[in-house]
Amino acid sequence: MSDHKAKFLEVYSTLKSELLNDPAFEWTDDSRQWVERMLDYNVPGGKLNRGLSVIDSYKLLKEGKELSSDEIFLTSALGWCIEWLQAYFLVLDDIMDGSHTRRGQPCWFRLPKVGLIAANDGILLRNHIPRILKKHFKGKPYYVDLLDLFNEVEFQTACGQMIDLITTLVGEKDLSKYSLPLHRRIVEYKTAYYSFYLPVACALVMAGEDLEKHVDVKNILVEMGIYFQVQDDYLDCFAEPEVLGKIGTDIEDFKCSWMVVKALELCNEEQKKILFENYGNGDPACIAKIKALYNDLKLQDVFTEYESNSYEKLIRSIDAHPSEAVQAVLRSFLSKIYKRQK
Amino acid sequence: MSDHKAKFLEVYSTLKSELLNDPAFEWTDDSRQWVERMLDYNVPGGKLNRGLSVIDSYKLLKEGKELSSDEIFLTSALGWCIEWLQAYFLVLDDIMDGSHTRRGQPCWFRLPKVGLIAANDGILLRNHIPRILKKHFKGKPYYVDLLDLFNEVEFQTACGQMIDLITTLVGEKDLSKYSLPLHRRIVEYKTAYYSFYLPVACALVMAGEDLEKHVDVKNILVEMGIYFQVQDDYLDCFAEPEVLGKIGTDIEDFKCSWMVVKALELCNEEQKKILFENYGNGDPACIAKIKALYNDLKLQDVFTEYESNSYEKLIRSIDAHPSEAVQAVLRSFLSKIYKRQK
Repeated sequence: MSDHKAKFLEVYSTLKSELLNDPAFEWTDDSRQWVERMLDYNVPGGKLNRGLSVIDSYKLLKEGKELSSDEIFLTSALGWCIEWLQAYFLVLDDIMDGSHTRRGQPCWFRLPKVGLIAANDGILLRNHIPRILKKHFKGKPYYVDLLDLFNEVEFQTACGQMIDLITTLVGEKDLSKYSLPLHRRIVEYKTAYYSFYLPVACALVMAGEDLEKHVDVKNILVEMGIYFQVQDDYLDCFAEPEVLGKIGTDIEDFKCSWMVVKALELCNEEQKKILFENYGNGDPACIAKIKALYNDLKLQDVFTEYESNSYEKLIRSIDAHPSEAVQAVLRSFLSKIYKRQK
Repeated sequence: MSDHKAKFLEVYSTLKSELLNDPAFEWTDDSRQWVERMLDYNVPGGKLNRGLSVIDSYKLLKEGKELSSDEIFLTSALGWCIEWLQAYFLVLDDIMDGSHTRRGQPCWFRLPKVGLIAANDGILLRNHIPRILKKHFKGKPYYVDLLDLFNEVEFQTACGQMIDLITTLVGEKDLSKYSLPLHRRIVEYKTAYYSFYLPVACALVMAGEDLEKHVDVKNILVEMGIYFQVQDDYLDCFAEPEVLGKIGTDIEDFKCSWMVVKALELCNEEQKKILFENYGNGDPACIAKIKALYNDLKLQDVFTEYESNSYEKLIRSIDAHPSEAVQAVLRSFLSKIYKRQK
């Protein structure tokens, strides 16, 4: 368990109880119960990597000095804001994708008493973020920077989700629209900003830094986020389900995955036909044909090469950064994901 | 046409074009087209009362002085932020309620190419608000107050929507949960804050006022919002569809309407049985029985009395306000809704 995980989980309880007694709303027993159940179901059940990394990054920025209990609380609160943001996206994404399970349990909207009320619950999750920020950061010199940061990153994520949705429009499955630049754009906006940039940006803001001066840090983290998502796409297809903890469904779901995009780039006309005829079909025979094609195209090797190239490029960018503390933050992120198996 | 309506509509085009070129996202033709169509379909098609009233209120606060073109632009931009907020709520509410039409056209999510992508479009609409605020208000001394204001009002609206949804939970139609305090709470949070308080609060903030010092204004506007919604509930049942512009469906939809809540308060045991047996049923015979009961209980008279009591109470509160400019704003709002027929 990370040094700060126990404390981090305690902060969840504090934030929850503050939200359930928010004076901006006149609570009833029913509504308080509803929100508590909704929060417990959707917010703390993930790996919490994004949230915990705010505390870790802040500590590295402070060059390893012990954090005060106030600093631990505040970095944890920012970490939880990211977890809240993630929960909000997942609740709504699951509705839009018609998903069935999430983190090993039925999706929130699949619960019989919930249904489409889940859409409003997603909105509530989103609204909790500025409530937490106001309660704990109002009056700090960087309060408005935090509001701007969360607003911008949420906007970028929603834009990424939009291009993902409109290129995968049901009834218009068109593989010819898929390309490496499109894949990059979806992944950059839908995942990289909120998963990689946001935790570090929160830590930088709390450490008194001006984000405008850290565009290079943003660029490196966005590259790392893209690399992370390419791994995800690879593992969805080639990892053992027992190791990965789930069964990949990108092929049958017609996802704009790095795998299919690379296959389209490398295939000959005959192989292209196989891709067009079988991609997005849930029939196990079709899935097998796609996977065989990926093998023929040696996508495992292509991925290995991509992985080491990305790693080297990232290391070079990190080494070029003028601040050793920032370098440490970036290296810590990279080491957590390099050659990951799940 | 209001003095400022032409200018207000021009500002919509400006804001739209800024959003479609927002540098925080790497646009493609497809995504730009999608967002433009989505905005034109959902944002400007309403009555625009909320948005326009920001300009009118600001002018009254400035005691009728001609506004500079900068002031007209900025008050219009705030007005449009409220219209964007409204569009966001309506797009998502229509999904949750399974509605079919809105403002005389199919609901956005009913369009064949849209479907549940509409949920993300709602999110985009919501995200446009801080983009507009940042573009035009960042650097102003009251920028953070605007962010806090929109965040708080959105939170309250989402809470109101929540209590509405959890009391009308499908499969749990239970009339005995409906009461005047519940009705008041739903209406206060779901409608009054964003429709009545928010436009005036925007104007006050822009005029350099501290909202903390205007709790009395908030209370008066919330009361007005509740009165407005009671009118809405009354008109849904008793207005001529040709005048109202739509056919009311509160009875068959099992809505926690002021009408049914008053009926429950005034009825005897026998009449209560009629309510329980027929409310929420779409059969025209059932609807007719409910309407007959409303007539037996003289709800038209009860409403007329409620209306004049509310009016007098509001006038007394307005008269008691120390600022004549603020009084003028409040009176202008009240005069627009008193004894309205649609």
